[in-house]
Amino acid sequence: TWYIKIQTVTLIPGDGIGPEISTAVMKIFEAAKAPIQWEERNVTAIKGPGGRWMIPPEAKESMNKNKIGLKGPLKTPIAAGHPSMNLLLRKTFDLYANVRPCVSIEGYKTPYTDVDLVTIRENTEGEYSGIEHLIVDGVVQSIKLITEEASRRIAEYAFEYARNNQRTSVTAVHKANIMRMSDGLFLRKCREVAENYKDVKFTEMYLDTVCLNMVQDPSHFDVLVMPNLYGDILSDLCAGLIGGLGVTPSGNIGANGVAIFESVHGTAPDIAGKDLANPTALLLSAVMMLRHMGLHGYAKKIETACFDTIRDEKVLTKDLGGNAKCSEFTADICRRVQDMD
Amino acid sequence: TWYIKIQTVTLIPGDGIGPEISTAVMKIFEAAKAPIQWEERNVTAIKGPGGRWMIPPEAKESMNKNKIGLKGPLKTPIAAGHPSMNLLLRKTFDLYANVRPCVSIEGYKTPYTDVDLVTIRENTEGEYSGIEHLIVDGVVQSIKLITEEASRRIAEYAFEYARNNQRTSVTAVHKANIMRMSDGLFLRKCREVAENYKDVKFTEMYLDTVCLNMVQDPSHFDVLVMPNLYGDILSDLCAGLIGGLGVTPSGNIGANGVAIFESVHGTAPDIAGKDLANPTALLLSAVMMLRHMGLHGYAKKIETACFDTIRDEKVLTKDLGGNAKCSEFTADICRRVQDMD
Ligand SMILES: CC(C)[C@H](C(=O)O)[C@@H](O)C(=O)O
Ligand SMILES: CC(C)[C@H](C(=O)O)[C@@H](O)C(=O)O
Repeated sequence: TWYIKIQTVTLIPGDGIGPEISTAVMKIFEAAKAPIQWEERNVTAIKGPGGRWMIPPEAKESMNKNKIGLKGPLKTPIAAGHPSMNLLLRKTFDLYANVRPCVSIEGYKTPYTDVDLVTIRENTEGEYSGIEHLIVDGVVQSIKLITEEASRRIAEYAFEYARNNQRTSVTAVHKANIMRMSDGLFLRKCREVAENYKDVKFTEMYLDTVCLNMVQDPSHFDVLVMPNLYGDILSDLCAGLIGGLGVTPSGNIGANGVAIFESVHGTAPDIAGKDLANPTALLLSAVMMLRHMGLHGYAKKIETACFDTIRDEKVLTKDLGGNAKCSEFTADICRRVQDMD
Repeated sequence: TWYIKIQTVTLIPGDGIGPEISTAVMKIFEAAKAPIQWEERNVTAIKGPGGRWMIPPEAKESMNKNKIGLKGPLKTPIAAGHPSMNLLLRKTFDLYANVRPCVSIEGYKTPYTDVDLVTIRENTEGEYSGIEHLIVDGVVQSIKLITEEASRRIAEYAFEYARNNQRTSVTAVHKANIMRMSDGLFLRKCREVAENYKDVKFTEMYLDTVCLNMVQDPSHFDVLVMPNLYGDILSDLCAGLIGGLGVTPSGNIGANGVAIFESVHGTAPDIAGKDLANPTALLLSAVMMLRHMGLHGYAKKIETACFDTIRDEKVLTKDLGGNAKCSEFTADICRRVQDMD
């Protein structure tokens, strides 16, 4: 007899279409017999003792225990002073690396066919420090904070990622010609870390040049590492190259194996509850999660089934150019997964 | 008898291929009988009394007198503490608006055929304030400075531009969800100014969303206005959509008619002096200059000739996919300009 260890993952279905696409992922995981057990938690922010917004304790405890989370879209809070829940999650669990592989999907037409790159974004500081001041009336400053420690940590993550994922180069993206001290520090740390990874090619590029070259020929890029805001911009740009946020997976990685994988699209309130949503981004994020957990066989199986369904073009959700419902698209992937056994 | 007023323009040929492409522009202007007289000036920085780098006085006086300049590429100085000459020029003449029209060029193949937009970048503050500090060892901050005055000024410029150039919408590009105070101030000023331009549609978008949508379908965009760094990024991205910096014109506009038009590509030292450079970006910048001076007829004539030469595909420089020399490409445009008379 064989025993398979079942691992528990915190599932944050999220708002809008979140519950539907989460159900889709759970069904596909079941069909694939993935050894995962879900612990569902809600992360709608609550006000803590001091009046500070915080993650509900049940969600926090679940994440602390399981270390791994899968998360659907969360609606942007409109209350004044209310933080973005996405940012609060990244902060609470110190998820310092935002990782987004962007790979062209066969059969899904975009102007580009040969995208195969990964953006690695520093997720904790930089332009997202949240420190801003009114200097005098009509004059405001925002502070971009760059530290040696966070820069080294993200650079090391990028090189480790490249080495462990058969990638050949890491490009540091910066504007150190303008922000000489802050981006300069970031760049210096990347250079230092590069010294320890002689098997990985290291290059440096200005952010503006990367954007220009990216839309002209994305095939030249491999692993890109950069400060927070640049990563926000470039990861969305690259998602656009392969078909948008509906097909782009994402992972937020912290220390000691802690990680939350998430679809980065919106909650799509207009189609919520109508069985019309496309679960691909959340599913591919869940595939990233399986790889993170070392479950490569299950990851490959589910990913292949998903891409086969898309390439086949017969059962596609509306945003992918078809007429199928979310449940039909999901069933098609489930069938393919089961056929592989 | 008619008298045509001849206006003098300061010409900064620049480094590398700068002199060749400047000669090309002068030849084409001559063929078009454009009523422009050139005053050539060098802007290699010199050290002023207090040890500060400055524009040579002859160049400064020429610009102060003529108000209008045309500038080729300048090499990036490598001396420590030496400022970028491009930035120093913008600062010295308070050229607060960087304007880049990006229009698909018929006959020049890129993945996009229907780009027709203008990026308007705040050119004096924001992330380019140059204020940075070392807080403690390993912790650096850069200050992004946003003022009410500069924000209002650039917003007004954008709406005026839209109105005067038959454009229908202005989109403010921001990250006010993250930089609530600084981008918030910028956005508030855009909203206020929009109130005075009811004939122009106003929208707001996050920078990351703009990048994503831009690579998916640029045809939806019209006039985009944004803080300094976002403009640096987005203007290069958009240039990439239409074929790169070799075909993209640019203007830096100040108060009271002062303006410097420039090609934003590099100095291309590898091909400098070999009669291989493509003068299109500088020529189209000179066309923008003619429009700025109210010389619309000459502008149209030269622009049409340039686009006809490109569409015809017979006499193209190497970067445009042909084998012609810079002088041959130039001669072809001159011939077309003369044929129009
Ligand atoms: C939701 C928003 C705060 C977030 C960001 O700006 O980082 C988003 O754009 C992202 O990329 O995850
Ligand atoms: C040369 C450089 C300083 C400049 C900038 O960053 O603004 C350039 O990229 C530009 O867009 O004009």
